[in-house]
Amino acid sequence: MFRFEVEYQSKKFPARTGKIITHRGIIETPHFMPVATQATIKALSPEIVQSLGYQALLCNTYHLYLRPGIEVIEKLGGIHKFMSWKRHIVTDSGGFQVYSLSQFRQIKEEGLLFKSHLDGSEHFLTPLKVLKIQKKLGSDLLMVLDTCIPYPCSYEESKALTELTHLWAKKSWEYWEKNRNPKQALFGIIQGGMYKDLRKKSSKFIASFEWDGIAIGGLSVGEPPELRNIMLDVSVEELPPHKPRYLMGVGTPLDLIEAVLRGIDMFDCVLPTRNARRGSLFTSQGLISIKNATFKDSSEPLDPECECYVCQNYSKAYLRHLFQAKELLIYFLLTLHNLFYYAKLIKKLKEAILKENLDSLREEIKELYKKDNSEN
Amino acid sequence: MFRFEVEYQSKKFPARTGKIITHRGIIETPHFMPVATQATIKALSPEIVQSLGYQALLCNTYHLYLRPGIEVIEKLGGIHKFMSWKRHIVTDSGGFQVYSLSQFRQIKEEGLLFKSHLDGSEHFLTPLKVLKIQKKLGSDLLMVLDTCIPYPCSYEESKALTELTHLWAKKSWEYWEKNRNPKQALFGIIQGGMYKDLRKKSSKFIASFEWDGIAIGGLSVGEPPELRNIMLDVSVEELPPHKPRYLMGVGTPLDLIEAVLRGIDMFDCVLPTRNARRGSLFTSQGLISIKNATFKDSSEPLDPECECYVCQNYSKAYLRHLFQAKELLIYFLLTLHNLFYYAKLIKKLKEAILKENLDSLREEIKELYKKDNSEN
Repeated sequence: MFRFEVEYQSKKFPARTGKIITHRGIIETPHFMPVATQATIKALSPEIVQSLGYQALLCNTYHLYLRPGIEVIEKLGGIHKFMSWKRHIVTDSGGFQVYSLSQFRQIKEEGLLFKSHLDGSEHFLTPLKVLKIQKKLGSDLLMVLDTCIPYPCSYEESKALTELTHLWAKKSWEYWEKNRNPKQALFGIIQGGMYKDLRKKSSKFIASFEWDGIAIGGLSVGEPPELRNIMLDVSVEELPPHKPRYLMGVGTPLDLIEAVLRGIDMFDCVLPTRNARRGSLFTSQGLISIKNATFKDSSEPLDPECECYVCQNYSKAYLRHLFQAKELLIYFLLTLHNLFYYAKLIKKLKEAILKENLDSLREEIKELYKKDNSEN
Repeated sequence: MFRFEVEYQSKKFPARTGKIITHRGIIETPHFMPVATQATIKALSPEIVQSLGYQALLCNTYHLYLRPGIEVIEKLGGIHKFMSWKRHIVTDSGGFQVYSLSQFRQIKEEGLLFKSHLDGSEHFLTPLKVLKIQKKLGSDLLMVLDTCIPYPCSYEESKALTELTHLWAKKSWEYWEKNRNPKQALFGIIQGGMYKDLRKKSSKFIASFEWDGIAIGGLSVGEPPELRNIMLDVSVEELPPHKPRYLMGVGTPLDLIEAVLRGIDMFDCVLPTRNARRGSLFTSQGLISIKNATFKDSSEPLDPECECYVCQNYSKAYLRHLFQAKELLIYFLLTLHNLFYYAKLIKKLKEAILKENLDSLREEIKELYKKDNSEN
């Protein structure tokens, strides 16, 4: 029910194009997944997101588990029906949100103990429980529970947390072998912190199971991009070519191209949607802020080279007005623009792989965003 | 450039169907206008609003004058282009918002002195200035400056304020006769407070000018519905049949039918859009609150009899989840539903006029919303 095909392998880089084929349809890779944290892409209807070409979204298990609760979504017929999204849904394990959102948390050998950021209620997530939760949600691609390694983190702690990730991966696989749902695919997750030998070891270990795909976790946690790229190189080296590779939580346009170049097939990130809500837009001229006072009476579109609905119909002056007035429509419009930009960027990346000119596209994007590294 | 045609005059009531014909197109009456206060229907794109059948919107001059400023909109090519709305735009004079929003205001014979609710800056609106502003905005239907009479208000004060409205109406007309823009239509406004003789007098006085249409102001300011209906009867009695009649700021489904029955052709109100943002929905079962705990795992649509996009695609459980999670998409969905409901209600009203069964529709709507008078 789940298959991955590499369609073109670059001769210059580990980069490749391909497709994931599931009972639900196709995800062409490389693919960027917008984040629908609480079972909605903030401010956009599913039809709009689909019309932009997105074939998969990421939903956050942690959030849905706490609200509205897994039973509600299961009773409603699963996450697709619940949120009225007909294409693929990937769910994470919840581990990262426990790490980033919960006030109180304890990492135990058996799992993660934490208090809800909503009401302080206590919860315990184990490797098996997060799989059972994701089975009930009915997502298409499931993630195993892993540990989150902060940055910076000592070698000893990184090693211990990575070993725990491995223990949980093993338990997850043993459970999955006996209890898999053939319509759902499971991805293992590589950790290893920012240490080459730990990364390498984790990558080898995770690659030794028959997951449907392999995710690279623990990056984009505050480390410099150069370090991330090294870790990415080390991780990918150990992976079999015939499985899709998913870099979690990444990233900026430059991050995406750096990762695609290194052989990554899938991404998710809140960046385009979150930036939009903050008035920060990706354009062919780099990042622009809609708050810019010079836009006050500008009849220009956000991006003269953009064919999106927003750039075809609205001026910077109008968008700035809506943003200043905190009008709800602005979140719809700016999110739509940024997701259009990301969809187009992914198309460009694919073309660049096929044309073997990823390096010149990288230079172009580096140049475009060179003053905006702080936005990462 | 502006014409009004009565198409069917009810034999039982002053109610009628008709159409306003302008250089921009047609407004079929009775027509309800959603309110686009700051040049946007909150949370909805213009295409969606248009797809629901709305042929005219109301924008608030007061808000646009303060932000982004009239010069900005004029420079951008006028209000239609600014907000990307291709059908009719009605603008009010700003008088009501000075009354309801401004911290400090003074009614002078020459006009209204007030301080901006945004930054405290001082402004002075005169009858001529509000027409000049609306000319620059480029709206299709303009309103004269009038005074707002609070409820309750003494006879003496109501009389004085009504006379000032008349003085301003006269000045407005004199200006308009010499400076009209043939693509724009001007409506006079009746005041008179809650006193039958003042209403009658105001109605007669306003009807004595050659406005393109006549608005009834100063209602829906807190008075009981019975009193409003009496004032409406008195006002309409004095009006010529061949001009469109616009009841400003009204209202609930029952208010609409009471007014249509009394010969009103146009309305505007924030009720459907504002209620939506507060989670209060109009349905074939009356008003429902999306916060209702019993909807927690309900797979039912908001309204089983509704054909709108929201009721066709989403469960109460999902909508409640989005509302509880304060997700931006909820404002889009609930506003869409309520505006769909109002558009359908207006269709029903038209049919009821044609079938001469407005009275039974009134009883039906009264019954439906009898427990919800507080929402008015």
